[in-house]
Amino acid sequence: MTKDSHLQTEILEQPEALRRLLHEERDTIERVAEAIRQRNPRYIMLVARGSSDNAGRYGQYLFGAANHLPVALATPSLFTLYESPPRMSDSLVLAISQSGQSPDIVAVVDEGRRQGALTIALTNDSDSPLAQTADHVIHLHAGQEWAVAATKTYTTSLMALAMLSSALAGSSERFEVLAQVPDHLARVTQQADTIIKASERYRYMDACVVVSRGYNYATSYEIALKLKELTYILAEPYSSADFKHGPVALVAHGFPVVAVVPQGKLAAELTSFLSDLRERGAELIVVSAHEAALQLAQTPLRLPGELPEWASPIVNVVPGQLFALGLTMAKGYDVDQPRNIQKVTRTK
Amino acid sequence: MTKDSHLQTEILEQPEALRRLLHEERDTIERVAEAIRQRNPRYIMLVARGSSDNAGRYGQYLFGAANHLPVALATPSLFTLYESPPRMSDSLVLAISQSGQSPDIVAVVDEGRRQGALTIALTNDSDSPLAQTADHVIHLHAGQEWAVAATKTYTTSLMALAMLSSALAGSSERFEVLAQVPDHLARVTQQADTIIKASERYRYMDACVVVSRGYNYATSYEIALKLKELTYILAEPYSSADFKHGPVALVAHGFPVVAVVPQGKLAAELTSFLSDLRERGAELIVVSAHEAALQLAQTPLRLPGELPEWASPIVNVVPGQLFALGLTMAKGYDVDQPRNIQKVTRTK
Repeated sequence: MTKDSHLQTEILEQPEALRRLLHEERDTIERVAEAIRQRNPRYIMLVARGSSDNAGRYGQYLFGAANHLPVALATPSLFTLYESPPRMSDSLVLAISQSGQSPDIVAVVDEGRRQGALTIALTNDSDSPLAQTADHVIHLHAGQEWAVAATKTYTTSLMALAMLSSALAGSSERFEVLAQVPDHLARVTQQADTIIKASERYRYMDACVVVSRGYNYATSYEIALKLKELTYILAEPYSSADFKHGPVALVAHGFPVVAVVPQGKLAAELTSFLSDLRERGAELIVVSAHEAALQLAQTPLRLPGELPEWASPIVNVVPGQLFALGLTMAKGYDVDQPRNIQKVTRTK
Repeated sequence: MTKDSHLQTEILEQPEALRRLLHEERDTIERVAEAIRQRNPRYIMLVARGSSDNAGRYGQYLFGAANHLPVALATPSLFTLYESPPRMSDSLVLAISQSGQSPDIVAVVDEGRRQGALTIALTNDSDSPLAQTADHVIHLHAGQEWAVAATKTYTTSLMALAMLSSALAGSSERFEVLAQVPDHLARVTQQADTIIKASERYRYMDACVVVSRGYNYATSYEIALKLKELTYILAEPYSSADFKHGPVALVAHGFPVVAVVPQGKLAAELTSFLSDLRERGAELIVVSAHEAALQLAQTPLRLPGELPEWASPIVNVVPGQLFALGLTMAKGYDVDQPRNIQKVTRTK
């Protein structure tokens, strides 16, 4: 056990980081929301890579459902490689990058400004090139993240997006929901030892899929990325809707499926899907507060529940982070410095 | 060998299907392009699932680079599950579905019309619910597709998108390039026996990644989907840009990487990336016309070359289709009726 790893410390710090963000950045976010309302963009052009891109997937559902704003995920190579950027003057360009260093992300924001679009950066470094390029900066207040695998900068990115969406909707009720998130998350981190212990069963797992849908589609991507980065297994994220389009065929006896089953509209559908997978012989690791879904699992990872589905991804990723941490230790790999990965990528 | 499988027949039919589409649908597509120009949408809302969604990924680069139109990939569950559709009145709603039957795709188009957006359906069935819902229909002219795994409806979807983009750009040169595509594709299908034979080496492969970037990012998704649908292996698509963000760590000795290396701006970068993977011990299956990339491969799948990068995805997927066909036969699975998959999914 590497009890004092940066990764573990940073996972456990998340309630505090989220409280700090909620407290320190609310006023800035309200001002940014006012600037957006004045400009009235037709859609959001969201630009990010890696874990931040997964945060962007959450943004697609959030801004779509709560603010009726369509979200296009940018393809940075149109800007840098093909040098043929799309028209963005009617868009809100929203960049997410914890380091604020990636040249291709900065290039999209730079082009957005040149075209006259409103540009906003979500970053953990307000002196970064990205922060200096955007019209407005929302600081993540996550504190220094030492581990290469992003955890607290991911959940603070989700929270910052949720705060921005709530401010745009002018909804104090939504902010009241968000104020409960740190306590919910703390109830998951209190189970850290249990979840780390449960991961031992998967010491020899070399591949899995991670399934969810809707708001938590992002959660499946992010849990899969943590598993790939840290444990070097093949972990493929899926929407349960797409899963039926073909990949369900690969589930044979013992094949591991991590599923995130939120409360709300999806609970019954996802539980029925899991029941089908279980009949096919799948091994189920289920992150949920929904009793029927947990009962299908060989490894149930229980969530505290009660949060509305739209806010749940900020908490639902955490059992996955702890599971990936535990599995990394069980497999005997370096938790803080996975091989071959740099924290900041310099894609051009 | 199941020589007379629908799948093999349909792969080999692709040059003919593309010629038919180019010939039969040009006038309709020019008229649709004129309707788009008159409406001047700010962005495209593209809605599709499965292979058609992969065609949409090609559309992102194509309309972005050639027409300066940003493309947002729709999240149908916002419409059907959360019943909270985004504003789309300034968009062009572009739906791709070979069957035209999927209720969630139809729901997005229906909502687009209700909001006053221009709606276009790309489909292989002009009597389908989708065709009846959209303002304009572009017919794929692929002929009946019997195999469950989509091949000719995928390449005709790419061609229809490329024709629409070229018509929008008012570019007769681009149509001249597209006119050459069927012959290029035929030069790949002539290698069918060789590629099928080469796939035998992978009889016991149970996982791989499929890597490309830019226009051919779509190709990596589609080849991975064919492998998953037909051979039940884990095949994960990647942009080579994202690969460096973590998953590169999973490449250990003998790990198979399928790479699509187009001519043009990406050839040098992708070749250098493959050289690095080869040093890490990866097994490389390379689809390319670029000699340096082919020389790095244990299994080179040579393309005829010469096509500009923007048109190359219509051809570059074909070695992957043939490789997946061959591997399915080598593993002894049913080529036309993979287990557990329906041709038309009825996601709600």
